[in-house]
Amino acid sequence: MIKVQYNELLKTFESILLKNGFSKSDSNTCAEIFATNTLVGVSSHGVNRFPGFISLVRSGNIKPSVSPIKENSFNAFEQWNGSYGAGPLNAKIMTNKAINLADEFGIGLVSLKNSNHWMRPGYYAWEAADKGYVFICWTNTIPIMPPWGAKEPAIGNNPIVLGVPRKDGNIVLDMALSQYSYGKLSNYKRENKELPYYGGYDDEGNLTKNAAIISENYRSLPIGMWKGSGFALLLDLIATILSGGNSTFNLSKDSIDSGMSQIYIAIDPNKFSSKELLESSINEILKFYLNAETDSEEQLSYPGERIIKTRDKNLKDGIKINNEIWNKVLLLKD
Amino acid sequence: MIKVQYNELLKTFESILLKNGFSKSDSNTCAEIFATNTLVGVSSHGVNRFPGFISLVRSGNIKPSVSPIKENSFNAFEQWNGSYGAGPLNAKIMTNKAINLADEFGIGLVSLKNSNHWMRPGYYAWEAADKGYVFICWTNTIPIMPPWGAKEPAIGNNPIVLGVPRKDGNIVLDMALSQYSYGKLSNYKRENKELPYYGGYDDEGNLTKNAAIISENYRSLPIGMWKGSGFALLLDLIATILSGGNSTFNLSKDSIDSGMSQIYIAIDPNKFSSKELLESSINEILKFYLNAETDSEEQLSYPGERIIKTRDKNLKDGIKINNEIWNKVLLLKD
Repeated sequence: MIKVQYNELLKTFESILLKNGFSKSDSNTCAEIFATNTLVGVSSHGVNRFPGFISLVRSGNIKPSVSPIKENSFNAFEQWNGSYGAGPLNAKIMTNKAINLADEFGIGLVSLKNSNHWMRPGYYAWEAADKGYVFICWTNTIPIMPPWGAKEPAIGNNPIVLGVPRKDGNIVLDMALSQYSYGKLSNYKRENKELPYYGGYDDEGNLTKNAAIISENYRSLPIGMWKGSGFALLLDLIATILSGGNSTFNLSKDSIDSGMSQIYIAIDPNKFSSKELLESSINEILKFYLNAETDSEEQLSYPGERIIKTRDKNLKDGIKINNEIWNKVLLLKD
Repeated sequence: MIKVQYNELLKTFESILLKNGFSKSDSNTCAEIFATNTLVGVSSHGVNRFPGFISLVRSGNIKPSVSPIKENSFNAFEQWNGSYGAGPLNAKIMTNKAINLADEFGIGLVSLKNSNHWMRPGYYAWEAADKGYVFICWTNTIPIMPPWGAKEPAIGNNPIVLGVPRKDGNIVLDMALSQYSYGKLSNYKRENKELPYYGGYDDEGNLTKNAAIISENYRSLPIGMWKGSGFALLLDLIATILSGGNSTFNLSKDSIDSGMSQIYIAIDPNKFSSKELLESSINEILKFYLNAETDSEEQLSYPGERIIKTRDKNLKDGIKINNEIWNKVLLLKD
């Protein structure tokens, strides 16, 4: 591991994006998203993913010089086409479109088709929450989990994010519908460690904590088992029909994870309430949650809490990055 | 078990509601909801719950002769006060308010405070889906699960429903965020049977399939463990701040489960797409889901599928009802 300062990371990403067909402004925005994701501790959807992102740009799967296009709109509901552009750029634009609609109508819904991997969806909920909005967004993905009762993948892990604004740190839940991501399974596999909880099924159909088996047979476990299986189906259905885009089924036809459908919903919580009232209500709920009695000395935490702590630490100390990955990134500068 | 025809059930509920202060129209609507829930196989939120519902009306906790009041509105976002009326009546009215907003704005958001138990939330998603709308709603509840890492309940199981319209049967997921409901735990406890999957923690903090223990210590398991814990927190936060109503924390101060906050979101999927296009897209997704390879002969099923089968069977054969409960209901007629 080496340590890289946030600004160096940002500038490095930016210069590489510029060389790969992105405009100055898009390079800056896209670099900021990749750098922020790394800064807040989600390197898996930051620096670690950057070389793969550039490969997809070079192979033409991610188009660097396109803009999303508004195809339809009806008051608070807009339908956009992502034009197979960069997922993070599209997502950030759609987030702000949903916010504009929330300003005008109280709630705003944006559906997006033909986008690409948006990296860390929590980024967009933080963006919206920082501006004072309640935010919900989700994406479909290629099939990577079996429906409940099956052994063959036919549902995505369809990450969903819910965010609530708060002065002393937004509350943002960023969750995929698989109990463990394949990235996390790989880590356990590499370290030859057992998962702390069941993460999927072995080849005989028994629940297992063996990450290696699940990484190979793709029988990962939806959260809440039959419940997460149904939830993944509904999120795919809604994203697909509202965007007119690809479903998990359609995405399964291509070997590259590209062209997904997404939903962005922003709500203005200040239309009928003062910021002070909201803040005190949120803090009261949070206090009750965090003060529940425990068996151990360990403090409870809320979704998003770690993000701020990690950001502040990394801004001060620099961000730890895997040497091999950083070298790969630096090679892209040439 | 005795068998009762749907119409007899409906008329019985209606006459009892009329005698307990509900108007003719409200008696009819409320009876229809209780009877339908029973008809489709969810007696736990139908006939089994009816005597308790009437008790709460008689004790003044559920007010029979009130209407919900619109407190604020801003284009596609309305804020309502449930006036501590009957939960099912309020919920059905709010569902249709959200639908009206979706007609006008593409999407509609209704937040409701001071309501009461809405029984089976799937009912409202079926109502909206039957009319052609995508629908999402949720409620908060009293604290009945410990947050992740705690042993004391501080989150609700906050049921959430997602529905998609479909000619040959809507797709409706109706899920509480606990892996098992306390009703289901009671059944396993009574029959002295082990849960098929972990349902909570024992007193030593180990995962357990023992329903009796979980029914007593209230350490039930959120779906996806840490994920469901965070999800429950976010649903409570959003319902509370958008409605200006009670949070799970506030609901915990009272011994009666009353005055909860709810969210209703309706979306018109036909604003930019024909019904035929939507239908074929939905059926394609469903086919892919249902055709995933299995290890057994058992057919996969989708959320909501059982509802129609049970309804059709019960309409033909009559509805099986627990004798003791039916006698309790009949006594309320006198």
